Amino acid sequence: MTPESFVIKADICYSETPRVLNTVQDGFLVCVKGRSAGVFRELPEQYAALPLLDCSGALAVPGLTDLHVHAPQYAFRGLGMDLELLEWLNTHTFPEESRYADLEYADRAYRRFVEDVRRGPNTRACVFATLHQEATVHLMDLLEVSGLCTMVGKVNMDRNSPDALREASACAAAKSTKSWLKEIKGRYQHTLPILTPRFIPSCSDQLMRELHMIQQIYGLPVQSHLSENQGEIAWVRELCPSSKNYADAYDAFGLFGGPGCPTIMAHCVYSDEEETALMKRRNIFVAHCPASNTNLSSGIAPIRRFLREGLSVGLGSDMAGGTHTSIFRAMTDAVQASKLRWRLVDASLEPLTAKEAFYLGTMGGGAFFGKVGSFAPEFEFDALIIDDSRYTSQGQSELEKRLEQTIYLSDERDIRYKFVQGRQIF
Amino acid sequence: MTPESFVIKADICYSETPRVLNTVQDGFLVCVKGRSAGVFRELPEQYAALPLLDCSGALAVPGLTDLHVHAPQYAFRGLGMDLELLEWLNTHTFPEESRYADLEYADRAYRRFVEDVRRGPNTRACVFATLHQEATVHLMDLLEVSGLCTMVGKVNMDRNSPDALREASACAAAKSTKSWLKEIKGRYQHTLPILTPRFIPSCSDQLMRELHMIQQIYGLPVQSHLSENQGEIAWVRELCPSSKNYADAYDAFGLFGGPGCPTIMAHCVYSDEEETALMKRRNIFVAHCPASNTNLSSGIAPIRRFLREGLSVGLGSDMAGGTHTSIFRAMTDAVQASKLRWRLVDASLEPLTAKEAFYLGTMGGGAFFGKVGSFAPEFEFDALIIDDSRYTSQGQSELEKRLEQTIYLSDERDIRYKFVQGRQIF
Repeated sequence: MTPESFVIKADICYSETPRVLNTVQDGFLVCVKGRSAGVFRELPEQYAALPLLDCSGALAVPGLTDLHVHAPQYAFRGLGMDLELLEWLNTHTFPEESRYADLEYADRAYRRFVEDVRRGPNTRACVFATLHQEATVHLMDLLEVSGLCTMVGKVNMDRNSPDALREASACAAAKSTKSWLKEIKGRYQHTLPILTPRFIPSCSDQLMRELHMIQQIYGLPVQSHLSENQGEIAWVRELCPSSKNYADAYDAFGLFGGPGCPTIMAHCVYSDEEETALMKRRNIFVAHCPASNTNLSSGIAPIRRFLREGLSVGLGSDMAGGTHTSIFRAMTDAVQASKLRWRLVDASLEPLTAKEAFYLGTMGGGAFFGKVGSFAPEFEFDALIIDDSRYTSQGQSELEKRLEQTIYLSDERDIRYKFVQGRQIF
Repeated sequence: MTPESFVIKADICYSETPRVLNTVQDGFLVCVKGRSAGVFRELPEQYAALPLLDCSGALAVPGLTDLHVHAPQYAFRGLGMDLELLEWLNTHTFPEESRYADLEYADRAYRRFVEDVRRGPNTRACVFATLHQEATVHLMDLLEVSGLCTMVGKVNMDRNSPDALREASACAAAKSTKSWLKEIKGRYQHTLPILTPRFIPSCSDQLMRELHMIQQIYGLPVQSHLSENQGEIAWVRELCPSSKNYADAYDAFGLFGGPGCPTIMAHCVYSDEEETALMKRRNIFVAHCPASNTNLSSGIAPIRRFLREGLSVGLGSDMAGGTHTSIFRAMTDAVQASKLRWRLVDASLEPLTAKEAFYLGTMGGGAFFGKVGSFAPEFEFDALIIDDSRYTSQGQSELEKRLEQTIYLSDERDIRYKFVQGRQIF
């Protein structure tokens, strides 16, 4: 089935760069075979014959990308956040994730997660599953049916975890990862595998070597966690005494970006200049997860510094360190966290603006999927049509202001239509 | 009309102290003539004849109190928050508030505000209107019809404000305040006036003296702002060179609490030990507004210190420094802000727990209205019946956990019934 071609008439907002937001009131947004053909004030003759979806008065914005989300943590979102990372993992996360050995449990829980994301504003996501092959494939099946575009990782972990949530050996982990990759080969159109070592403390050196080989053979992208919490960083220092820093511990095994190995690292709250320089050399995508970093008392990542240094940055919900899947909420959280960091920690890094946060949640994270997160020509057609009348001001007409209110105030009820790659999700 | 007497069967949660949360699964909550007669595991014989509302499986919690909210700022919530307090007031707030000279505009805007609060979880609020008598009375009329219990202030301001939003003189301000009090005398059952000097920078010494006299004559409670932002504090120091601190500038005019003058001060972000000691002596209610203090880059108030020192503390939305009226959201924000303050500023003040935030948003702020914010016997019967099935975990049964998820995840859609003083709002 080829994606449709059509035209949407609406009030259109999309980023061109972090600081340039394009807005067109009563504009025409053209989708040709799943990609944007551009945004126009008057509809060009060549598109006049396409079907027109008239959404006059509603906002059209690109779909949002969640660069870091743990699907199996959805069931306990909003719970148990009076702990810090390592204790939280042991008390809440690991016991919950071990339940995904039970496919019936996984089915019920994953259906709720997928339905939440499907109805919300995110069109793309990079997802951690658990180490269980069966449940991970089931999650991928559900995501494929949802119409969203996602990358999903069967998690690898073979040390420092409870028995029920630890692969028996590096070798067994590699074997089950290859078995998973074999099972899903050719199975999906919109759901891709991503290699997912949980984080250094959970992965033995041998496992990292095995995963590096798999990465090389299959050419998979990679996702993991980096420098989230000071206790975690101290632990990595103990576990990898020869590494210069946490990033270097991944890099030593060839699992830290570079050509042919596109990589997302979540958090980067405490990445210093040396670590940041390595992230830049390897073209790491930073998944900034402000809600989670607050809820788990981790701290606030220096996103302004990353942007100045030209790093690739997107936003993550980090469910269930975060409580909401919507990346609009992550935009709000990112702006708020940056303000407090500026006020309380470092006055040289000025706060993020709403416009910049919008960029991060659309183009910034979208870039991990290719030309995604904008309506510039050739971008894949991920779009949200949002009725903002529930919360916008009387007589408010400036599009940039309506967008700002949408970031702060909208929820899934306000989304009238949602498209991914030109496919209508609802 | 006397309030009804009835019984609700539900899963009941309410605070007894900041650290003691009472929970009763499948309990009976008894309302007799608008007040709680208590919570019971088995329904006592004496109440057996009362009508029973069976809400089995749903949560019952006390209604929430918003200790600090600006009704006329509702229309521009979620807008223009890339500024700090004083610039934000001049750029956004004052121009918007001056529109309330137009009663038609005020009617449209206030209706939206009141309807939002009516449908949400707050049952009580202390509200700033504008300086306009006509629009303020109209807001009070709308609030009275809503069934909520509120205190509303016609704002006083006679200096450092634009022409359109400045009372002509202290004398004129006093006159119009008395005219307002005369107009509303005996008009409402649930809507009370509260004296509202905007903040020291907006009020001349003469105006403060006039308001003190009005306070003495009418015995009104008082609400204002205190130590929100460093630029504001420096300005107060210039304006009141003889005052020891910002609090003392109010106290010099007899408008800072004490016997017969119950007073709310919003923010208190930078209240030092000396100021805090005066707040305690005068039994000031602190309205903690974490979202606003973040959005306007003000900082984070030391709520843990206030609680240790035995101050009265409640939560405020501070619409439109904050973006959401719901005090559940303020609870989330309060916990999050306290975690960042602990991590980034002062490790001696441990974060607030969800349980403590729940106390602040119910009993803490409710105490300004009397016996409000709990289901202990004799408390006024403000209650929310919440269907938490949309977001609670599979098989989650512990009430305290369901309450925590409700704080983080619920919205107005989940409220099935709402009562204020035993009156059913919906």
